[in-house]
Amino acid sequence: MTIDAQILSALRNAEDGSVSGGELSQRLGISRAAIWSRIEEMRSLGYEIEASPHEGYRLRNVPDVLHADDLLSRLGKTKVIGRDIRVFQETTSTNDVIEKLARDGVKEGVVVFAESQSKGRGRLGRKWVSPLRKGLWFSVLLRPDLRPQEAIQLMIAGATALARAIRDETGLSPEIKWPNDILINGRKVAGLLTELSAELDHVNYIILGIGVDVNLNASDFSSELRKLATSLKIEKGHSIDRASLAAAALRELDADYARITTGHFEAVSDEWEELCSTLGRNIGIRIGDRVLQGRAESLDSDGALLLRTQHGRLERIIGGDVTVKK
Amino acid sequence: MTIDAQILSALRNAEDGSVSGGELSQRLGISRAAIWSRIEEMRSLGYEIEASPHEGYRLRNVPDVLHADDLLSRLGKTKVIGRDIRVFQETTSTNDVIEKLARDGVKEGVVVFAESQSKGRGRLGRKWVSPLRKGLWFSVLLRPDLRPQEAIQLMIAGATALARAIRDETGLSPEIKWPNDILINGRKVAGLLTELSAELDHVNYIILGIGVDVNLNASDFSSELRKLATSLKIEKGHSIDRASLAAAALRELDADYARITTGHFEAVSDEWEELCSTLGRNIGIRIGDRVLQGRAESLDSDGALLLRTQHGRLERIIGGDVTVKK
Repeated sequence: MTIDAQILSALRNAEDGSVSGGELSQRLGISRAAIWSRIEEMRSLGYEIEASPHEGYRLRNVPDVLHADDLLSRLGKTKVIGRDIRVFQETTSTNDVIEKLARDGVKEGVVVFAESQSKGRGRLGRKWVSPLRKGLWFSVLLRPDLRPQEAIQLMIAGATALARAIRDETGLSPEIKWPNDILINGRKVAGLLTELSAELDHVNYIILGIGVDVNLNASDFSSELRKLATSLKIEKGHSIDRASLAAAALRELDADYARITTGHFEAVSDEWEELCSTLGRNIGIRIGDRVLQGRAESLDSDGALLLRTQHGRLERIIGGDVTVKK
Repeated sequence: MTIDAQILSALRNAEDGSVSGGELSQRLGISRAAIWSRIEEMRSLGYEIEASPHEGYRLRNVPDVLHADDLLSRLGKTKVIGRDIRVFQETTSTNDVIEKLARDGVKEGVVVFAESQSKGRGRLGRKWVSPLRKGLWFSVLLRPDLRPQEAIQLMIAGATALARAIRDETGLSPEIKWPNDILINGRKVAGLLTELSAELDHVNYIILGIGVDVNLNASDFSSELRKLATSLKIEKGHSIDRASLAAAALRELDADYARITTGHFEAVSDEWEELCSTLGRNIGIRIGDRVLQGRAESLDSDGALLLRTQHGRLERIIGGDVTVKK
């Protein structure tokens, strides 16, 4: 962790909410003057840090911006994901940034956030609206020892972890719509995009891209989108702390990634099935030009959807556009 | 086709071997002086082009270098593959070059050759020796409408097309060793590397990398490799025309790619099965840390190998290192 992250972490975890400059100086191994200078710097970014001669420093308020050090301090210790966090004010798409890092050989677990994306994208190159500081738009680099057809496990883990983080942070009840959407009250609030680079029998790397509509207002959506999409703010009636949700999402993702890499994908997929509103429903699914009708029965061990068609056949589906029948 | 390619093509296809400057000028729509200047340029590259006042131009000899225009003129008209050919004297790996082109949105079918590669690679990042002008090291960009697990079809097509081209150009009898090697008399003479960029249910692009040991001498191989690898020159006892083999390989590949994209993969895989020395044999196959033993029974409709294990189970294998039992 950087010095800033360590200071923020110490302030957050302080028992009575405050820590003296002397204690910080000792704990971090740098002078009181250096601590003071870092705190001044953070204040200039909008962090309200009170300093009193008796109590020391106290964190009063944090600005609604994503800041790598702040995210690191909130996240705490993870196994793989988020030990390296980078925040961009604007980028084309965080998946693009991660792809460059991947090709440069950067280690798995690095996370890239952008406050806004000029070319945010969903599945199959579809546009993803990503207005400045209203959502969480981020991507994670993973290098699991999987075959390409097992990559879907990571999307399952991503959706499960994200749903759990949203539920814990907001009290709302997110559902998963297969394969890559998170819904609240039937409208889409988040999506996942899984991209991979692979040889035929071996994944080189996987990029898990996540977009969450956190604090968008109804006016941020086009009239067409408004019927299908929502935000946590709209559902909850007030703004949500983006940094806190981001840290929760990374923490949950780290936990589920650990479950997958230690051979416990089944535990993840059991949880996924409980959250999934698509299972047990009659659905239509468009795969390219083909449309299949049937009942979504379950996931198989690789994470594919098993669809019982009208003709009684069981089809194994990797991806497609689902419409749930009423 | 470029002017140079058109001139070479006209000279190659001339009925009595020669074409007059006037005829070339008329056919290509440029002046005789311009034709003369292009021919001078080609001579400087090593092309022996005779000019006589009565007969016109005659192609006597071509140098053993790969030249995009020459390859285009030999290739003739193809549907997709090789309509854009680029030759590098040296590069890290032709797959790297194609990857950059792919990300820049270049159309499928572009082929990159390198006279030598500093970081030629085989499956799983293994090193591929690629000495200057002794082999064919090239990669093809493809953008088929396939799911990631169907990408293996392209390797099957690549191996089949390459085996056919080698057989037709040399009279030798190449065999395919599953999944990605071409053998002659039991030793490896060529290999294929298939890399893909994909979403979970949709391939963005596939890079088919091909390496053929054409004119390597025994001394070009390390003593360890010499037991396992060979070259067309070693097997045939004389040098092979690399450009002619390259054109043949692209032509055959174009034909097989057309078979796949029009839904006739089965015809390709039938031919593959006939060429494949792995099928019907007892093999050991190493997949990561796992070793399976059994009999290689057949390919399934996606191109995966069906292995009947010692315990009678049928396993579906996408990739691995095969050892054939005697």
